[in-house]
Amino acid sequence: MSPDKLRELLAAVARGELTPEAAAERLADLPFADLEFAKLDLHRELRNGLPEAVYGEGKTEAELIAIARRMHEAHGRVLITRLAPSPAEALIEALPGARYHERARVLTSGESRGASSAEPQTVAVVAAGTADLPVAEEAAVCAEWFGLAVERHFDVGLAGLHRLLAVVPALRRARAVIVVAGMDGALPAAVAGLIAAPVIAVPTSTGYGAAFSGLAPLLTMLNACAPGVAVVNIDNGFGAAVVAWRIAVAAEKTKR
Amino acid sequence: MSPDKLRELLAAVARGELTPEAAAERLADLPFADLEFAKLDLHRELRNGLPEAVYGEGKTEAELIAIARRMHEAHGRVLITRLAPSPAEALIEALPGARYHERARVLTSGESRGASSAEPQTVAVVAAGTADLPVAEEAAVCAEWFGLAVERHFDVGLAGLHRLLAVVPALRRARAVIVVAGMDGALPAAVAGLIAAPVIAVPTSTGYGAAFSGLAPLLTMLNACAPGVAVVNIDNGFGAAVVAWRIAVAAEKTKR
Amino acid sequence: MSPDKLRELLAAVARGELTPEAAAERLADLPFADLEFAKLDLHRELRNGLPEAVYGEGKTEAELIAIARRMHEAHGRVLITRLAPSPAEALIEALPGARYHERARVLTSGESRGASSAEPQTVAVVAAGTADLPVAEEAAVCAEWFGLAVERHFDVGLAGLHRLLAVVPALRRARAVIVVAGMDGALPAAVAGLIAAPVIAVPTSTGYGAAFSGLAPLLTMLNACAPGVAVVNIDNGFGAAVVAWRIAVAAEKTKR
Amino acid sequence: MSPDKLRELLAAVARGELTPEAAAERLADLPFADLEFAKLDLHRELRNGLPEAVYGEGKTEAELIAIARRMHEAHGRVLITRLAPSPAEALIEALPGARYHERARVLTSGESRGASSAEPQTVAVVAAGTADLPVAEEAAVCAEWFGLAVERHFDVGLAGLHRLLAVVPALRRARAVIVVAGMDGALPAAVAGLIAAPVIAVPTSTGYGAAFSGLAPLLTMLNACAPGVAVVNIDNGFGAAVVAWRIAVAAEKTKR
Amino acid sequence: MSPDKLRELLAAVARGELTPEAAAERLADLPFADLEFAKLDLHRELRNGLPEAVYGEGKTEAELIAIARRMHEAHGRVLITRLAPSPAEALIEALPGARYHERARVLTSGESRGASSAEPQTVAVVAAGTADLPVAEEAAVCAEWFGLAVERHFDVGLAGLHRLLAVVPALRRARAVIVVAGMDGALPAAVAGLIAAPVIAVPTSTGYGAAFSGLAPLLTMLNACAPGVAVVNIDNGFGAAVVAWRIAVAAEKTKR
Amino acid sequence: MSPDKLRELLAAVARGELTPEAAAERLADLPFADLEFAKLDLHRELRNGLPEAVYGEGKTEAELIAIARRMHEAHGRVLITRLAPSPAEALIEALPGARYHERARVLTSGESRGASSAEPQTVAVVAAGTADLPVAEEAAVCAEWFGLAVERHFDVGLAGLHRLLAVVPALRRARAVIVVAGMDGALPAAVAGLIAAPVIAVPTSTGYGAAFSGLAPLLTMLNACAPGVAVVNIDNGFGAAVVAWRIAVAAEKTKR
Amino acid sequence: MSPDKLRELLAAVARGELTPEAAAERLADLPFADLEFAKLDLHRELRNGLPEAVYGEGKTEAELIAIARRMHEAHGRVLITRLAPSPAEALIEALPGARYHERARVLTSGESRGASSAEPQTVAVVAAGTADLPVAEEAAVCAEWFGLAVERHFDVGLAGLHRLLAVVPALRRARAVIVVAGMDGALPAAVAGLIAAPVIAVPTSTGYGAAFSGLAPLLTMLNACAPGVAVVNIDNGFGAAVVAWRIAVAAEKTKR
Amino acid sequence: MSPDKLRELLAAVARGELTPEAAAERLADLPFADLEFAKLDLHRELRNGLPEAVYGEGKTEAELIAIARRMHEAHGRVLITRLAPSPAEALIEALPGARYHERARVLTSGESRGASSAEPQTVAVVAAGTADLPVAEEAAVCAEWFGLAVERHFDVGLAGLHRLLAVVPALRRARAVIVVAGMDGALPAAVAGLIAAPVIAVPTSTGYGAAFSGLAPLLTMLNACAPGVAVVNIDNGFGAAVVAWRIAVAAEKTKR
Repeated sequence: MSPDKLRELLAAVARGELTPEAAAERLADLPFADLEFAKLDLHRELRNGLPEAVYGEGKTEAELIAIARRMHEAHGRVLITRLAPSPAEALIEALPGARYHERARVLTSGESRGASSAEPQTVAVVAAGTADLPVAEEAAVCAEWFGLAVERHFDVGLAGLHRLLAVVPALRRARAVIVVAGMDGALPAAVAGLIAAPVIAVPTSTGYGAAFSGLAPLLTMLNACAPGVAVVNIDNGFGAAVVAWRIAVAAEKTKR
Repeated sequence: MSPDKLRELLAAVARGELTPEAAAERLADLPFADLEFAKLDLHRELRNGLPEAVYGEGKTEAELIAIARRMHEAHGRVLITRLAPSPAEALIEALPGARYHERARVLTSGESRGASSAEPQTVAVVAAGTADLPVAEEAAVCAEWFGLAVERHFDVGLAGLHRLLAVVPALRRARAVIVVAGMDGALPAAVAGLIAAPVIAVPTSTGYGAAFSGLAPLLTMLNACAPGVAVVNIDNGFGAAVVAWRIAVAAEKTKR
Repeated sequence: MSPDKLRELLAAVARGELTPEAAAERLADLPFADLEFAKLDLHRELRNGLPEAVYGEGKTEAELIAIARRMHEAHGRVLITRLAPSPAEALIEALPGARYHERARVLTSGESRGASSAEPQTVAVVAAGTADLPVAEEAAVCAEWFGLAVERHFDVGLAGLHRLLAVVPALRRARAVIVVAGMDGALPAAVAGLIAAPVIAVPTSTGYGAAFSGLAPLLTMLNACAPGVAVVNIDNGFGAAVVAWRIAVAAEKTKR
Repeated sequence: MSPDKLRELLAAVARGELTPEAAAERLADLPFADLEFAKLDLHRELRNGLPEAVYGEGKTEAELIAIARRMHEAHGRVLITRLAPSPAEALIEALPGARYHERARVLTSGESRGASSAEPQTVAVVAAGTADLPVAEEAAVCAEWFGLAVERHFDVGLAGLHRLLAVVPALRRARAVIVVAGMDGALPAAVAGLIAAPVIAVPTSTGYGAAFSGLAPLLTMLNACAPGVAVVNIDNGFGAAVVAWRIAVAAEKTKR
Repeated sequence: MSPDKLRELLAAVARGELTPEAAAERLADLPFADLEFAKLDLHRELRNGLPEAVYGEGKTEAELIAIARRMHEAHGRVLITRLAPSPAEALIEALPGARYHERARVLTSGESRGASSAEPQTVAVVAAGTADLPVAEEAAVCAEWFGLAVERHFDVGLAGLHRLLAVVPALRRARAVIVVAGMDGALPAAVAGLIAAPVIAVPTSTGYGAAFSGLAPLLTMLNACAPGVAVVNIDNGFGAAVVAWRIAVAAEKTKR
Repeated sequence: MSPDKLRELLAAVARGELTPEAAAERLADLPFADLEFAKLDLHRELRNGLPEAVYGEGKTEAELIAIARRMHEAHGRVLITRLAPSPAEALIEALPGARYHERARVLTSGESRGASSAEPQTVAVVAAGTADLPVAEEAAVCAEWFGLAVERHFDVGLAGLHRLLAVVPALRRARAVIVVAGMDGALPAAVAGLIAAPVIAVPTSTGYGAAFSGLAPLLTMLNACAPGVAVVNIDNGFGAAVVAWRIAVAAEKTKR
Repeated sequence: MSPDKLRELLAAVARGELTPEAAAERLADLPFADLEFAKLDLHRELRNGLPEAVYGEGKTEAELIAIARRMHEAHGRVLITRLAPSPAEALIEALPGARYHERARVLTSGESRGASSAEPQTVAVVAAGTADLPVAEEAAVCAEWFGLAVERHFDVGLAGLHRLLAVVPALRRARAVIVVAGMDGALPAAVAGLIAAPVIAVPTSTGYGAAFSGLAPLLTMLNACAPGVAVVNIDNGFGAAVVAWRIAVAAEKTKR
Repeated sequence: MSPDKLRELLAAVARGELTPEAAAERLADLPFADLEFAKLDLHRELRNGLPEAVYGEGKTEAELIAIARRMHEAHGRVLITRLAPSPAEALIEALPGARYHERARVLTSGESRGASSAEPQTVAVVAAGTADLPVAEEAAVCAEWFGLAVERHFDVGLAGLHRLLAVVPALRRARAVIVVAGMDGALPAAVAGLIAAPVIAVPTSTGYGAAFSGLAPLLTMLNACAPGVAVVNIDNGFGAAVVAWRIAVAAEKTKR
């Protein structure tokens, strides 16, 4: 509840239009839907600009359907990440118009919604190798659903530097660049050294033993020799898309 | 060298205004100043929008003075981070107009330079506790030198949630929010849950034993339950300031 | 053997009612049941107030049945944790009145037994997300079997702070609060900042890569910025329930 | 602000005794003292039952004096932990009646204040070895300042089990037992196997190389084979005292 | 080749009984059987007193049979550890008289062979919990095959100290005590505090999350507060048996 | 593009044989084949002397076939590592002349190609135990495909030092020695102490718990007491083969 | 208290020679000396065969003197490990006949006492490099004080294998071999492959960065490819000496 | 002793020129100098091609002088690494002609000695930043002392890629390239992607917190996306120089 709303509420009490009890109740009337096993934060879009996304892992099919329906009801659209193919089928039947992005393991329903009627801002999603595609696609699909225009540049790892240099002009046009890389995770630093936009680095869990399931690229990215690299969790394409969305859209949307 | 410059150069060759040898030389004439023990990347401002900063640790006083003078010559201003008080004194004598920010351990010379003549964009720097001040100040001083307007909100950790809630309206007005925290590092997630702007999290190395010199808050921030948190290295206030600068300024500056 | 009992025994020897040999034997007659592959600590309830619980993992069905029967014989009730569904079926047949709590993976037989005939004390079990439910249910089911009244508050993670604030009044009424959280594990600190009762934090192994199977929330909880958080092992709902029981019940029970 | 206070405030507005503006201001009038470099949470005692403690490390002498004076003004007493001897001297001059506990590195001013006029509850502080004394003393001094009666049992490590057995009867009388141990950290499990009260385990950073500055006893304690052990941060005697205080006192104090 | 043998060989050359070429060949005639994929160290029994054991994991059935036959040929007996049930069946058919110890996952053929005709020395194998049985049985079966007399004491963990105290007299009679424990791994220190014989500690990989697959008990054992605990690898019952054998038997056997 | 080529290109522009536009295009005409999900670095052989190898894990069968065909087209040969048996079958049908090396999990097509018509240089591949064979075979098969002569010496671990000493003369003849070892990873240091050629150490992920999936041998090798050991990633036989190839062949090949 | 003593005590009660009260008191009369800050386990020699040693770190000079005097009084001799030179001087004055072993940082007083009047058993102490000397000397000095004959073999690391081979005959004569090594820690495995006696491995904290203060040699030793290596804590020469003493002496001493 | 030498020795025995006793003695006459606290491996140059280097840390001044003198006597030259300035002064006095390289912390005496009279081979030493200079200089100074020609290229990190590209032609002429880098350690992969010679990567311990004293660049280098990178220990410039020497010189030297 914003300070403005609070003042208004109190004024209504002062004017006798609202009893103190009703006002107290309204203050306590928190905007979430309680499904017992989950409390859906229906208020999040107002607060943060994006509706709550659903983390698909560790939920039963029945729970996923109940949550997705309730979210769809409230927002007209739903985003579910980390969703296995088999519950995805059931959800597609339950949610008319839903679509499952297999490589990204993401389900979307409802149309993506840009910040305004204006032209969408562009975000680039760069992947070091083919093995990083599932995470890169998660980032790309989520960003598109958030209303961003996404340009994909895959398999441009440092082992063949010219592949990266070939896409630099495109990267320079983006509002933010998401760079997905496993193994040594050196790509984000190289990108940050070549462009001025913010670089969002996503380590992936692919690679030989001493990559330690993503620890190696994570540390590399945190220590990137070129400043201006910000890092999200291992394999967290969704998180990177939210950061990109905040950079590109949120400020404009919420300042007014 | 940008594609445009390349075309122009080749056209000059085609017009006979430039010999092939001279053109090849110019292409190889890389824009760095070689001090033998250091190769100063004088080109970085053109490429990334910011001049190269100098990392003060592990350099001798003589090296620091040589580097700072050469940078100042090229850019009219210098930024040195992680600088101990004693070489700072020597540098202040050597560089007229330089200033040492003790708590931040940063030396600046030259005026901060915004992206344009327009009003500077605002970045908020939030610190969880008083012990996080040196890192928070590093972020703030660097951001100011980059031409951003900085609002400081210190000691608003989660143990007294109302202190944070009191500054939320201010945070909502910022283009990006840098959140500095040691110990459990939980503050960035709380901030990200309350605002729409991008949150740049900086773990610090303060705290009891199981903080493991910043590992604990680092992991907390990477796993932030509220999406939209991007993380930089432990104690790296400078890096956070660069990310903020890229978010706030770089895109505008370089797109043209 | 308590000092009182020892004095009594020695007095019986002194009175000639007991031969030294018999007394020595009795002192050596340790109260456990030796099943060869297991030595059941039948004495534990007297010493600690709770009968020994059975850890279900890594035991064969036959061993589980033998142990459960012997425990039931001695105490009239049994608690088995970390029990897979398939041995659970066999145990339900073998132990009349046993019940399998699927989500919690716990089997209970016999009635829960409070500390006294008085009203049971209340413990709150709070879970950050739906994915933390199995651990939260383990804590809740065990606590109920120990004779505590349990209030469940699930999916109240920090990303939507108002969900937590809505349950604070309820948490304030509890004798102890168990807080279960994966990912960043920041919830217990937030709870501890809002209430005065002891907070028992349980990290879970859910989350993206850099949660490192529960290491991240474990460290967060140990470093909780609000003092008064005590931590148990990753995914150890049972252990949290025992701590809660000790806080709420044990002292009264054993002081007399 | 409690729900009761909120209703009262709104009623005052309804009765015309308070303008809406004044009410909004009062709601926003957050109870902290802003010293610029620190925001003192003066409200904490009301919320949690204990005033905010000051973490002494990383603060300048001037800051410590300013904070301590302001805290003393508000609460009539101050607790500073992790305080080096040299700023302690300055503080003792600045704060009449303050006392520095050298081994514990704790400064206290004002009298300890029990929960009520009733007899204070007893907490036992157990230390495995002489090297664990500073941490054990931190726990003991803090607990005393919180108004608890403290019984100390030092150097009762497992290598000579009989030393522990000798103090078990005393431990059985305590409302909670704090067990401080470095090296293998096995003592808390042994204590928990012998008594029914809650055991608060504090790992210390003493020991040979593979203790890894407290990591080894920390893991041991989290994995304690006897259930009912709750763990706090390495060397965090203060945190253990707060948990003990919450167990022993808080519930009674706040339920009314 | 021992110095004595070398002298003898050279003397034979000096006497002309052996050509230099033959002597050089004999020196190079190293005592291993080369199966191409494996070089069997048939010499080990002479050097170390025990024939080479076969590590069963990661070898194909065919390789296992070839190796086992060749070992049996050379030594009249074979020991295979970490052997899954399915190749074990094939080996039992291929090696007359072989026996598979299922819980220990060990296959033995040939009779166990003590150091001498004298009475075998006794080693105790102690396990903290039922879940540690496979490792404890590996230690026990191997030790028996090495010719030691083994006494088993299982499920005597610290949570019920009296179970351990009951077996102390038996432990005092052993030449060495192998203590197998997971979770907190505190048992070996307790044993070492009660007896004078060497304690060989084996951490196991059982337990809740923060046991980190045996890391926690490993560290506990290395930091055992009672001196005289020597540690082997996680789950390495075989290694513990070899250490016990060296302590009990090897010295006598090889000194003569 | 080499400096020579650049000069030539510019000269052609100067001579009017090439328009500036065409020259710029050619400079941008980067030598990779874009398959959308992969950008094949067809240029690598020219730059590094070896064609790009394909990492088989995490790619679908269809992607593998498309990539392999395109590589074969460009180079007349393909190398795929970390390839499971089932996609291997499909590839063998799709690529005439391809061969699957099962133990090494490597697919090769086309003939191996030495640096010159001269006799191939020899590389030794040494494995400590039979369990290290898959990694050792990956190194050997790759090295052969690169045109090196490979000598295999398997199962010569330190437990029977004479097995190693027997092959030292052969190792002395090699241009480089690849040493593959799990468990304690001590073999490379022993080899480096006996010969003068460079030793390339490959840790493997085999062994008991505290080998931590290859971490133990990795650290051992990095700390090898005999200088001259260089280490590659855990289980990375392919990487070791490339280092060997660079040592043996690359310099000669590229200097001219 | 041994079972025999207990029977005797009870018999005395039965015979009326002892009142039950006196007997109970005697049972409770635990054999430690309570110095308030330390509880000296004077009973340990009877139980374990060795008096308690004093860990010198973290104790004040005054505490060390008080403890040492009390120990000397009770046992006629004292052993203090990890003692810095400055308190050592004070102790030498306070304890007539005490001697400080500087390299080992050990203080001894009283004569070493073998298990019997018979010839002392021999233990070998082997060090890989000169940098491992302090730890090796700690082991040697302690073992000598325990009454063992010690043979030192220093600087025989694997980098020059022949240095080790030269001392093998001597090692074969020892009852147990302590092997001290930093860096790669490979020496114990090599020794264990060559002799039959038990090998006690002590990792040290010397070496380059990736030795991680002893972690690397610790893991190497736990994974030693030659079975029969038992490991103690990093830099813990004292612990190794106790294990050696238990192997060599304890059994004989305590069996009778 | 080589097989050839052995045959020769045996032939001399056969010819009666040598008694068996003398031959046995000679075989046992191991080529090291025993200084009691050190056993100097004077044989190493014959076996490996390089004399033993002295690790300066943890040795007293007296020990260093004794070792250096004995080495100088045997080889006419000495190399001491990791030597602090103060013992260096004493050594320079004791060893005529010795020189201390301050930045590298290396002392050399005697002339560097190439493999043959032929022109020395070239090795490039590349450093990412100025802070990596001490390690890079250690590598360079050692390599020069080994008889290699060294080209230094410092401060060419990835943040300004053009600095690296400018030196690629020079790197292409080297027989091996040593790449020294801290922070993200990404430079070696970039170099390996551009040249064909073997790349020896040296991680350094410089950088912000999450570099974890060199762990981050170490992991990056082990996971280098460009194959052909071999890694040595953190800060181990000496080790890298030995690998380079083995690559460049050893094979030629020892094959004959």
